[in-house]
Amino acid sequence: MLVTKNFSLKRAMEFSGHHIIWLTAWMSSVTLLYYYTNLQWLHIPWLPLSLIGTAVAFYVGFKNNSAYDRMWEARKIWGAIVNSSRSWGTCIKHFVSNQFTAQHFSDEELKSIKVKMIYRHIGWLYALRSQLLVVTNWEHANQKGLIGHAAKRYIRKFGTGLVDDEVTKINLKNFLEEHEYEELINFKNTATQIIDRQSEDLAKLREKELIDDFRHMELQKILNDFYEHQGKCERIKKFPLPRQYGSMSFIFVALFIFLLPFGMVSEFAKLGDWAIWLSIPFTVLVGWVFVVMEIIGDYTENPFSGMSNDIPMLSLCRVIENDLREMLGETKLPEDIVARNGVLM
Amino acid sequence: MLVTKNFSLKRAMEFSGHHIIWLTAWMSSVTLLYYYTNLQWLHIPWLPLSLIGTAVAFYVGFKNNSAYDRMWEARKIWGAIVNSSRSWGTCIKHFVSNQFTAQHFSDEELKSIKVKMIYRHIGWLYALRSQLLVVTNWEHANQKGLIGHAAKRYIRKFGTGLVDDEVTKINLKNFLEEHEYEELINFKNTATQIIDRQSEDLAKLREKELIDDFRHMELQKILNDFYEHQGKCERIKKFPLPRQYGSMSFIFVALFIFLLPFGMVSEFAKLGDWAIWLSIPFTVLVGWVFVVMEIIGDYTENPFSGMSNDIPMLSLCRVIENDLREMLGETKLPEDIVARNGVLM
Amino acid sequence: MLVTKNFSLKRAMEFSGHHIIWLTAWMSSVTLLYYYTNLQWLHIPWLPLSLIGTAVAFYVGFKNNSAYDRMWEARKIWGAIVNSSRSWGTCIKHFVSNQFTAQHFSDEELKSIKVKMIYRHIGWLYALRSQLLVVTNWEHANQKGLIGHAAKRYIRKFGTGLVDDEVTKINLKNFLEEHEYEELINFKNTATQIIDRQSEDLAKLREKELIDDFRHMELQKILNDFYEHQGKCERIKKFPLPRQYGSMSFIFVALFIFLLPFGMVSEFAKLGDWAIWLSIPFTVLVGWVFVVMEIIGDYTENPFSGMSNDIPMLSLCRVIENDLREMLGETKLPEDIVARNGVLM
Amino acid sequence: MLVTKNFSLKRAMEFSGHHIIWLTAWMSSVTLLYYYTNLQWLHIPWLPLSLIGTAVAFYVGFKNNSAYDRMWEARKIWGAIVNSSRSWGTCIKHFVSNQFTAQHFSDEELKSIKVKMIYRHIGWLYALRSQLLVVTNWEHANQKGLIGHAAKRYIRKFGTGLVDDEVTKINLKNFLEEHEYEELINFKNTATQIIDRQSEDLAKLREKELIDDFRHMELQKILNDFYEHQGKCERIKKFPLPRQYGSMSFIFVALFIFLLPFGMVSEFAKLGDWAIWLSIPFTVLVGWVFVVMEIIGDYTENPFSGMSNDIPMLSLCRVIENDLREMLGETKLPEDIVARNGVLM
Amino acid sequence: MLVTKNFSLKRAMEFSGHHIIWLTAWMSSVTLLYYYTNLQWLHIPWLPLSLIGTAVAFYVGFKNNSAYDRMWEARKIWGAIVNSSRSWGTCIKHFVSNQFTAQHFSDEELKSIKVKMIYRHIGWLYALRSQLLVVTNWEHANQKGLIGHAAKRYIRKFGTGLVDDEVTKINLKNFLEEHEYEELINFKNTATQIIDRQSEDLAKLREKELIDDFRHMELQKILNDFYEHQGKCERIKKFPLPRQYGSMSFIFVALFIFLLPFGMVSEFAKLGDWAIWLSIPFTVLVGWVFVVMEIIGDYTENPFSGMSNDIPMLSLCRVIENDLREMLGETKLPEDIVARNGVLM
Repeated sequence: MLVTKNFSLKRAMEFSGHHIIWLTAWMSSVTLLYYYTNLQWLHIPWLPLSLIGTAVAFYVGFKNNSAYDRMWEARKIWGAIVNSSRSWGTCIKHFVSNQFTAQHFSDEELKSIKVKMIYRHIGWLYALRSQLLVVTNWEHANQKGLIGHAAKRYIRKFGTGLVDDEVTKINLKNFLEEHEYEELINFKNTATQIIDRQSEDLAKLREKELIDDFRHMELQKILNDFYEHQGKCERIKKFPLPRQYGSMSFIFVALFIFLLPFGMVSEFAKLGDWAIWLSIPFTVLVGWVFVVMEIIGDYTENPFSGMSNDIPMLSLCRVIENDLREMLGETKLPEDIVARNGVLM
Repeated sequence: MLVTKNFSLKRAMEFSGHHIIWLTAWMSSVTLLYYYTNLQWLHIPWLPLSLIGTAVAFYVGFKNNSAYDRMWEARKIWGAIVNSSRSWGTCIKHFVSNQFTAQHFSDEELKSIKVKMIYRHIGWLYALRSQLLVVTNWEHANQKGLIGHAAKRYIRKFGTGLVDDEVTKINLKNFLEEHEYEELINFKNTATQIIDRQSEDLAKLREKELIDDFRHMELQKILNDFYEHQGKCERIKKFPLPRQYGSMSFIFVALFIFLLPFGMVSEFAKLGDWAIWLSIPFTVLVGWVFVVMEIIGDYTENPFSGMSNDIPMLSLCRVIENDLREMLGETKLPEDIVARNGVLM
Repeated sequence: MLVTKNFSLKRAMEFSGHHIIWLTAWMSSVTLLYYYTNLQWLHIPWLPLSLIGTAVAFYVGFKNNSAYDRMWEARKIWGAIVNSSRSWGTCIKHFVSNQFTAQHFSDEELKSIKVKMIYRHIGWLYALRSQLLVVTNWEHANQKGLIGHAAKRYIRKFGTGLVDDEVTKINLKNFLEEHEYEELINFKNTATQIIDRQSEDLAKLREKELIDDFRHMELQKILNDFYEHQGKCERIKKFPLPRQYGSMSFIFVALFIFLLPFGMVSEFAKLGDWAIWLSIPFTVLVGWVFVVMEIIGDYTENPFSGMSNDIPMLSLCRVIENDLREMLGETKLPEDIVARNGVLM
Repeated sequence: MLVTKNFSLKRAMEFSGHHIIWLTAWMSSVTLLYYYTNLQWLHIPWLPLSLIGTAVAFYVGFKNNSAYDRMWEARKIWGAIVNSSRSWGTCIKHFVSNQFTAQHFSDEELKSIKVKMIYRHIGWLYALRSQLLVVTNWEHANQKGLIGHAAKRYIRKFGTGLVDDEVTKINLKNFLEEHEYEELINFKNTATQIIDRQSEDLAKLREKELIDDFRHMELQKILNDFYEHQGKCERIKKFPLPRQYGSMSFIFVALFIFLLPFGMVSEFAKLGDWAIWLSIPFTVLVGWVFVVMEIIGDYTENPFSGMSNDIPMLSLCRVIENDLREMLGETKLPEDIVARNGVLM
Repeated sequence: MLVTKNFSLKRAMEFSGHHIIWLTAWMSSVTLLYYYTNLQWLHIPWLPLSLIGTAVAFYVGFKNNSAYDRMWEARKIWGAIVNSSRSWGTCIKHFVSNQFTAQHFSDEELKSIKVKMIYRHIGWLYALRSQLLVVTNWEHANQKGLIGHAAKRYIRKFGTGLVDDEVTKINLKNFLEEHEYEELINFKNTATQIIDRQSEDLAKLREKELIDDFRHMELQKILNDFYEHQGKCERIKKFPLPRQYGSMSFIFVALFIFLLPFGMVSEFAKLGDWAIWLSIPFTVLVGWVFVVMEIIGDYTENPFSGMSNDIPMLSLCRVIENDLREMLGETKLPEDIVARNGVLM
């Protein structure tokens, strides 16, 4: 997540400056061709081109809107994870008690149960985060050539790379009992099975009468909510913005930019011989606006791709971790995750 | 579901290339007519045409938006099926117990009950998938002539045809008891009656006191959720994007493309005699952009039609199947469904 | 609900062809006036007219969007009725039992109770359908003159008229006990009071201990859901798309079409004397596109008006009826409703 | 709520005709100035003005969309009030019984309890309606000068004024016990405290064992739903469409209309000396379209302002009243509210 | 929250007038350059610029829409806080009783418990408000230079500064027990831990049998709702409108305004020598419209930033406080918050 109000010029250039190079190359080539070859019939009237421009702007606008919705939905889901986690913490803390037990459990025994179930939940959070960061087929980091290369560099500099040192400190083993860790890590979907383990423990608590039926049902419902939150994240992760929309938006923009100098050069030519050179920077600017519109959506549509537009999952996990550990009365807490290079992960 | 970031040129041509043929034919005809007959009054001013173009682009944009919403809603529903299925698995596993029984059931008896109810649920998943793939009146595969023919070829090559071998391995009989299979398969709506059977078994479990009232109610609520998910899928399957919107969008685009060369040819004619031929590729491009916008929506609006833009139901069924079977402690699991030809079904 | 992918030309003409008549009349009149009177100053510049055209297209687009949303919401509600009805069926079937009774009820007694409560629910469905089809003030069938007349013909040929014979076979008396029918039919809102009767019976079942408190609450909640679904349908039926939006959209389109030939005729006149006649078909086409956009929304905004764009309520009622009767073990079921003239009601 | 399909011309003029006066005045002034002073350089090129026109049309379109959403949400909330009220009626009627009581209550005693709680609910409805009609700072009726004056006249003729005689017949005292009325009327928020009183009575019913815990909880949940519905209405009433959006839309339209004649007059002047006078009606029409777009949103955004676009709260209250009183077996019911002057309140 | 229908001219100037200065400076510079240097080739054709203008208007329109949605969602959440708070009040008041206790508690003891739990809730409200007003990195008040300076002045004059005197009167200590205050104030997230404290007290009430299991569960659910509301507020506060969208919108508008005079000056030059000066005010107006569109979104997107477009949290807190204290029978209540300078906080 970007945390500065505005891009600095430097940042804007890092994000989109390289596109100016090829835009300039293309726009200049056509202008030169037009100027030196006198192929003056080689231009196209502006007005029909303008219709294409409007239609493409609509289309890209729609795609960006959808990309934004995906990101905002992802953020909502993680917000819901925060809320349900706090409910889980407070309910585990205050529902597990000696009230319904025949045999009395000591305060320490009760505490250790609560710690176990709250820690295992923190484990689920970090496990879910890791699972969501596995690169998919359609993310930039998985592309060939320049795009994939740039994406990997970008991830190091403005993405998950920023929190490498934090992540190494988090060890799923610390939040799970050892034997559990071994079993859970081998499942197809570790997070799913962690919840199943929580569910199992609830049933055991009920058996020992540490909770009664009412409380068992409420706690299980919160676990079902976690399944829902997890499934919703996986839905966004594993179902891209439909590629027929995304690809075509790219192709339309490319097409428009391809045609752009043919339409513009003659409009400038009308203003005089020298004006023709003025068409280059102006055409580049117009092209750049369309390219940037396109890539804004393109780099927003996958909110769990490890890049700077990601949902700040690590930061949110840490916030939850600390809230829950404070509920347990702990005071030695890990630091909050802070933004680096203007990016919070 | 398409799983590559961008269409390759080859794929884009397979998807929409054939439209270029008739577009070229039409645009060339008008240009030739204009050139040879000197019927130079046979053109129309560009500006009013441009208004039609803008209005049509709006209209098609709206339709594409709705088509996208239908697909995304379909994906959300299947996501919810994943979530509720995991809840069903974990709840059946941990709710059914000897805690409330007078008579003690052996671990094996309990296990076999759990397996039966979870397997029947997996059966429901595959049954629902099959029901949703029955072709409706308004899907491409049910059209006459070239469109229907192409759709069927497309389905074989980039649609459900890709997973034929997987599907033959899935046998509803494996997930249902034999006598049950015979009964259920003959109902008007098999999936509906599978849930009814689950409901019946819950009532029996309650009778035998393997679950108590609390747990009975919660489990029944999850079944009611499945009815909801199933009904929502059926709603999208059986209620097309209103045909008055869809048909008119097609007619408007056709009309615009019909008029296009009349409006464009004279604009190019102004640039000189030779420029008139340049109008053909350019007009084809403009027409192609509108055609592609139209068909993107057209091939997205039915997310259960067995084609490449479908919700990957088989893959999701398999994911659920494996998650639930891992919960039951099974380790010999079927393979995940993988993408072929860039398509995941 | 229209069930063909595309309008045939014939159908498109039946839907909107008559508008071409008056459009041609108007466009021709202005052209003739312009041609014969030499009132050549009587035209208006195209560009400002084009701005009006764009603004009107936005405005109509917005209205169509809202009309679509109303229809889709109506379909969602009926989808929810399907889902809740299945839940009602399965819960009544499996919740009513001897488990909590002091005195034992025979299987037949239990069955007859279940049948009564499920049949009464089917009665509610058909009653709700009838109530929703009562014509309101703002529906086409209630307009004076040509519009109202055409609407009534349209309803006979492509609307509820198609299912007249089916509907006569449905008799609310078959689904309600006789004395009940007499009482219920006289209430201001029969459907509301049917649910109240269901509620009353649930209380009686609880009194006889055929259900316990848990089940009573769950079943009552499903009844409350039916109140919700019914109320939502009534909301759409009884609250039109705000008339200030709908009327103005009509006025704006009329205004634009009124001005259209004045703006277009001179543009064509520039192309030569004969071209002026070409302006007629073209202007008619442009006008027709705007008229069709307007009426698509106009005929979609009321999804319970008995016309071809309606939610197929009868068909859905029948689907539910059959699903529920199959749950009750019945095998002699009425036929599904099928589409006629390309319309499913 | 307007209940006629289309505005009659008369109604459209009543709604927006007076704007034509000042539009004509302004447009004529500029034309006269242009004609007589020969200040022919005093015009502005049309194309940049057209861009402003498009941008303003977008902006106003967005505002109208939001205004519509506010109204539709308001209608949804009142729809939900209908649904919850019916649930309240049927649940109170069938949940309160002798089933759990040690001491037996007579049928009359039970009936009087039910009547009291259902009547008090009807009282809440009318109280909520009154509270929502108190004029806020940003509603038209609270503006100074002509606008406020016109709004008050409009309210008398097409708004709450239409139902004055009905309203005087409704007396909160009839639905509340006398001592209760005195207490409740003095609270800051009467409706809130009526629900609190309902809540208190539920607790008393539980104490007397006329309801058990299950039913107590369900009934309390319905009361909490009423708090939710009330709060949602208050949210729309007390939080206007953000004024920065609404004010600026007004300013942009005013600006566009101010500039309009300067841009148009020269376009017409090109057509000849006489054509210049033709610019007046045309410019007025264009201006009128923008003004009407603006005021449609402006008069829709506050759905509880006592004007003709309001949610028909009185009518809905009456529908609920009658449904609930029919549930109680009453037959002498007040008349339904009917539309007057084409408006249902 | 602004509470006047329209901006006065003075207010509109305070909000956006200073932009006119730099717009005039820039537009004049280019005009002067054009006029004196005869660099008449230094202009750009209007039509391509117009395409940029349209695309930018779309883009900004989208951003404003999103900003509006953020604000409206924030208002919805605070509306939900109102509703849940009233439920909390009435439920605490009527659920805590001697009905299930072995030992009898005096009315005063019961009252003091209720007061404690309702007051602590009021404390939570004010604590949440304070937490939401801490300035984030991307809010105006945290920017460097003129923007940050102006924001701070604006906050004093039209923002939280207006209610300084009210806020000093609110003391969290009055709503919490003293020892509690000390503990809670030191937590990372005070509001979270206040709810945890409520949860703890509920468990104690259950232990003393002042509530039973049913009521315990319902009250805990309301607390979980508060976690949800709090988390949703924090989501909007801590996750800005994605900066890639916001920044680029700013850059696009800046770019368009940079190019504007080059495109406009020659259009005016065509009208004559003097007309060129007319281009300055007109260009400024066009630029101003785009700037205002941009900043409307910019100052709306953060609804908890202490400025005039904020959700009126203090006012809402006070409304809830008074409603709850009236439920407790208190009559000496603090004043409602009133609007000052046309702003309600």
